[in-house]
Amino acid sequence: MDRLPGFRDFYPEPLPHKDVWSIDARNYIFNTWEKVLSYYNFRQYDGPPLEPLELYTLKSGEEIVGQLYNFIDKGDRNVSMRPEMTPTLARMVASHERNYRKPIKWFSIPQLFRYERQQKGRLREHFQLNADMFGESSPEADAELIALLIDILRSFGLTAEDFVIRISSRKAWSDFFNAHSSDPSKAYAFYQIIDKLERESPEISSQKLAELGFDYDEISQFIASGTPTEELQTILKNLEARKLSEFVKIDYGVIRGLAYYTGIVFEAFDRKGHFRAIAGGGRYDNLISLISGGKLDPITNTVKGGKVNMPSLGFGMGDVVLTELLKERGLLPSFNPTLDIYALIENESLRPQTLSAIETFRQNGYSVDFSLTPLKSEKQFKRAIDLNAIWSFRLQQNTSENAPTFFIKKLSTRQESSFSTLQDVLNLISSNH
Amino acid sequence: MDRLPGFRDFYPEPLPHKDVWSIDARNYIFNTWEKVLSYYNFRQYDGPPLEPLELYTLKSGEEIVGQLYNFIDKGDRNVSMRPEMTPTLARMVASHERNYRKPIKWFSIPQLFRYERQQKGRLREHFQLNADMFGESSPEADAELIALLIDILRSFGLTAEDFVIRISSRKAWSDFFNAHSSDPSKAYAFYQIIDKLERESPEISSQKLAELGFDYDEISQFIASGTPTEELQTILKNLEARKLSEFVKIDYGVIRGLAYYTGIVFEAFDRKGHFRAIAGGGRYDNLISLISGGKLDPITNTVKGGKVNMPSLGFGMGDVVLTELLKERGLLPSFNPTLDIYALIENESLRPQTLSAIETFRQNGYSVDFSLTPLKSEKQFKRAIDLNAIWSFRLQQNTSENAPTFFIKKLSTRQESSFSTLQDVLNLISSNH
Repeated sequence: MDRLPGFRDFYPEPLPHKDVWSIDARNYIFNTWEKVLSYYNFRQYDGPPLEPLELYTLKSGEEIVGQLYNFIDKGDRNVSMRPEMTPTLARMVASHERNYRKPIKWFSIPQLFRYERQQKGRLREHFQLNADMFGESSPEADAELIALLIDILRSFGLTAEDFVIRISSRKAWSDFFNAHSSDPSKAYAFYQIIDKLERESPEISSQKLAELGFDYDEISQFIASGTPTEELQTILKNLEARKLSEFVKIDYGVIRGLAYYTGIVFEAFDRKGHFRAIAGGGRYDNLISLISGGKLDPITNTVKGGKVNMPSLGFGMGDVVLTELLKERGLLPSFNPTLDIYALIENESLRPQTLSAIETFRQNGYSVDFSLTPLKSEKQFKRAIDLNAIWSFRLQQNTSENAPTFFIKKLSTRQESSFSTLQDVLNLISSNH
Repeated sequence: MDRLPGFRDFYPEPLPHKDVWSIDARNYIFNTWEKVLSYYNFRQYDGPPLEPLELYTLKSGEEIVGQLYNFIDKGDRNVSMRPEMTPTLARMVASHERNYRKPIKWFSIPQLFRYERQQKGRLREHFQLNADMFGESSPEADAELIALLIDILRSFGLTAEDFVIRISSRKAWSDFFNAHSSDPSKAYAFYQIIDKLERESPEISSQKLAELGFDYDEISQFIASGTPTEELQTILKNLEARKLSEFVKIDYGVIRGLAYYTGIVFEAFDRKGHFRAIAGGGRYDNLISLISGGKLDPITNTVKGGKVNMPSLGFGMGDVVLTELLKERGLLPSFNPTLDIYALIENESLRPQTLSAIETFRQNGYSVDFSLTPLKSEKQFKRAIDLNAIWSFRLQQNTSENAPTFFIKKLSTRQESSFSTLQDVLNLISSNH
């Protein structure tokens, strides 16, 4: 029996097969994410992996359903395994934001699910870091978020030669649009074409733009000029003060397709262009209002009537592209777990006393392993080496006395010391730890 | 819009509402689990939260489907959100066990899902620690697993007055059955009655047992006698050597309903009897064979013909009962996160230099927060106190010189020091950390 297509098994290293993923690499990535998030004082949250389908269609329209792992449950509810975290987060924030100081700075590492037909070999789940801020409209918040993204990528050993954050502005594009069109109902279609410019042939884009009344060359020139808006200038100055300028560039070629962005948008790319975007995000000031009962005006892309209204911004970073990138750059550490103590049992009559010592070691916070069944001494010692034990431990019962003697050996130097109490052994280990 | 019934939102503390759960308490529980598992040298794994339905019916029969969160996916597959981790684990171990040293000692903390109708207010998901061992048939392995369970519960501050592990033996029950019945086809029905004895009235159990040809009083006597089998004696001796006897008792009233157990079974209960079982597990030597293609003989409860055949044992511990128990006993710590440094910006002209210092602090592994927008000094200082900052930091630009002066204040003592380089500030902080 096999797992479902598009799902992953995570095994401990060393990996048994190229078709499975490493839980150790996953933990390394999650832990690094969490570490840097703590430096930025972000707090964690989590929500259900299954939500009402409406939560996603409300934000992204009915078109999204074709990409979802959705179904009708036994209670006749239209539900979906979560394809993204932001709607859940918006629901959670809208429900209880009054209990938290602003700006709210929260993160989560949910597993997300998609079901697109006809995409053989493509993953149907991944893990995604979501880092979001609420209650701050100043571009200083956008800069803080971009600095966080940079510091996360740097903490994996990636440098300005490996990645760049391309920053753009929905406002710049909306100004451009309004200067060239008097029909706001075409705005969404226009953004979709811009979003696909880099993947589409110039001919097709040119034709599509012409149909909306836009000139391809003028747009290419607007992107090439990259004149930063006032907001973008604030962000660039902020990042310069942090000495992070080399990690970013203004690039109006980025617009991000999703309708819900309202301000600054950005994407992180590897400079060599080998991979899809490593991370992406931006400002979405309308979503909380929408989720809390507001109505979207698709023409002006504004929301009115929501119970809660809060400036919002965030980004997502998946585990799959990041893992591939770190692998390619040789930046995934080798995972070779160590063991504090391997307990040797040279004589089965000593097993009870050894078990007592093992329990004491573990109570003192040391990892201990040993052979559960009788085994030749040499094999036990080999096992200690195989498990990367720092110490080997054994005890001997002196025939003339009641108390045993305890032996502790540092395996790197093969130096052995003997003690008459276990406390002395603990003292030696803790002073060498 | 609300979340689905039976699912939980996890918020950071302080909790905004009694209806939501604490991510900080959850992390505390997960981290404590992982810590003790590392002392026992268990390695982590993970698998898909969605699996083919057949994986569960194969192990538990078609009856299980009524309790599952199952559905037909867009590819017409019969799938289920995982109700338990063991079948996934058995599949993973059967696929790649040859690449790992025995005994394999693995753990995971999956989120599990159930869908039972007519159970209003009952949770449909929970997190469950799964700790399992493979490749070791000796009861010494069962003892190691029970010791692990005890040490996990102790590490939360629970004592022998709070909980007890009731240990029983499927073999003892099978010997009893064979001594009183010559019809092995009745064994499963018999175990089901025994499993329900404590929840069922004596009259009903008595009648049901009589129908199978058993005498209620004889069974009560067998349970009361609790004469340990040889295997159980080995386990008791092992735990005694570890000085863990007070945490366990032999109790044949425990049998665990699931058909797949083959040897020792055990459950952890709070001594006051306020809660459902805290944890439960046992030996299931047939499952790997079954999952790897073997056929179950329901009469003898043995499996033949599987590609892989391995002794297996494990236990599960959910987060819900444990959280309730720890709350009742006052053993959940209060979660009051601290911040290393709050950076004060007394004058907006100092923001760029302060941002530079903040970036340096974070690069050195300190958590830093600050006001993203202009704010009165008193309010910034109040914010530092609210965030439980250990230090406050500020800088001043000396009009006569280029270099600023850096001030660092320990908030617990209100003692402030000033330095002419940021490195001096870092030195002070690291020596006080």
